[in-house]
Amino acid sequence: MRIAELSSRTGVTSASIKHYVREGLLPAGERVGYNQTAYDETHASRLHLIRALLDTGGLSAAATRAVLAAIDDRDVPLGHVLSTAQDAVSRRGAAPSPGALARVRALVDDRGWTVSEGNPGIAQCAEVLDRFAGIERDDLAGMLDRYAQPVLDIARGDLDAVAADLGDRDRMAETVAVGTALGDAMLAGLRRMAQEHVARTAGPGADAPRPRQP
Amino acid sequence: MRIAELSSRTGVTSASIKHYVREGLLPAGERVGYNQTAYDETHASRLHLIRALLDTGGLSAAATRAVLAAIDDRDVPLGHVLSTAQDAVSRRGAAPSPGALARVRALVDDRGWTVSEGNPGIAQCAEVLDRFAGIERDDLAGMLDRYAQPVLDIARGDLDAVAADLGDRDRMAETVAVGTALGDAMLAGLRRMAQEHVARTAGPGADAPRPRQP
Repeated sequence: MRIAELSSRTGVTSASIKHYVREGLLPAGERVGYNQTAYDETHASRLHLIRALLDTGGLSAAATRAVLAAIDDRDVPLGHVLSTAQDAVSRRGAAPSPGALARVRALVDDRGWTVSEGNPGIAQCAEVLDRFAGIERDDLAGMLDRYAQPVLDIARGDLDAVAADLGDRDRMAETVAVGTALGDAMLAGLRRMAQEHVARTAGPGADAPRPRQP
Repeated sequence: MRIAELSSRTGVTSASIKHYVREGLLPAGERVGYNQTAYDETHASRLHLIRALLDTGGLSAAATRAVLAAIDDRDVPLGHVLSTAQDAVSRRGAAPSPGALARVRALVDDRGWTVSEGNPGIAQCAEVLDRFAGIERDDLAGMLDRYAQPVLDIARGDLDAVAADLGDRDRMAETVAVGTALGDAMLAGLRRMAQEHVARTAGPGADAPRPRQP
């Protein structure tokens, strides 16, 4: 198909399609004659995946390229697809304090979790602990331990979703990458709803419905 | 204290402090003589809160201003502090499809959750469902129902943390706002660790340790 059809089918502008090709996110189409390029179904589905990672996952172009490369390379084991996707969705903030890092590692050890030194979750949780200390609200740090078991339940379900396609490496790799990148958004969205529900049905003084949006 | 001392105590540059005053995030210091301004402890603690919301929570300056105003205004009920903080941490993406919105609302109804129409979590979860459909991976939509119960457990714990300071409205408001804004980062960080643990201890073909970071 021509670029105009690819654009209308995916809702991605021709300019963006060309941009993704230049950025190395989308394979170039096939040249068919003077100043014409043909695209196929693989381009359409890849465009949807690119937009999911960029727009909903919030990944940078470079991070998206790394995740797509990990999905595409059949020699890359699933564990490395996972770590690539995790690095891609993790922001790098200020270096956390040694004390906060030690506290996160203690949680990991206490729970018997197998976690590499390079896992970006360690620094991310430590950064939050440092922020609590900064505003003199160390009492909020209990959140770390409180969230651990529900999050482990979530991770177990994630793995079951991956294992549903056992034997199909490419599909499993996509599940790992997409689940990691878009699962955060799903979690955060559900948390907004659950928070309102709990606050309005059991909340001390927090029982007012949310004001209508302007 | 002078701005130089406020800067060295908080780790925030003088230029940033002046910027936050201009942006309406930080109250101006007291003019004490020609070209000199005095700051006090309230400025130091407010600066830590601003950085927590901006840098770790990922809020925009406008969203941070709205959250701080909600914390500061004692006439604002906690339910509205919550909805202000929720709106502040929610990105506005493409308008979700009616089908995806209906699916999220069905989950809310099935579980008996009390959730307002304007809750930003509805659109956020619907956007993720649309992305799954876009990449022809509707099988991943089970994530919505699978995450609901663990997230409800998390929200109940969040409310208990707020209720720990029952009677102290200002502290409860801060807990609601900070917990909402920084809780997402904590959840995501823990998820990275739990995912690696589950993948390495039970994963089919995903048992390799993450490669060392360069």
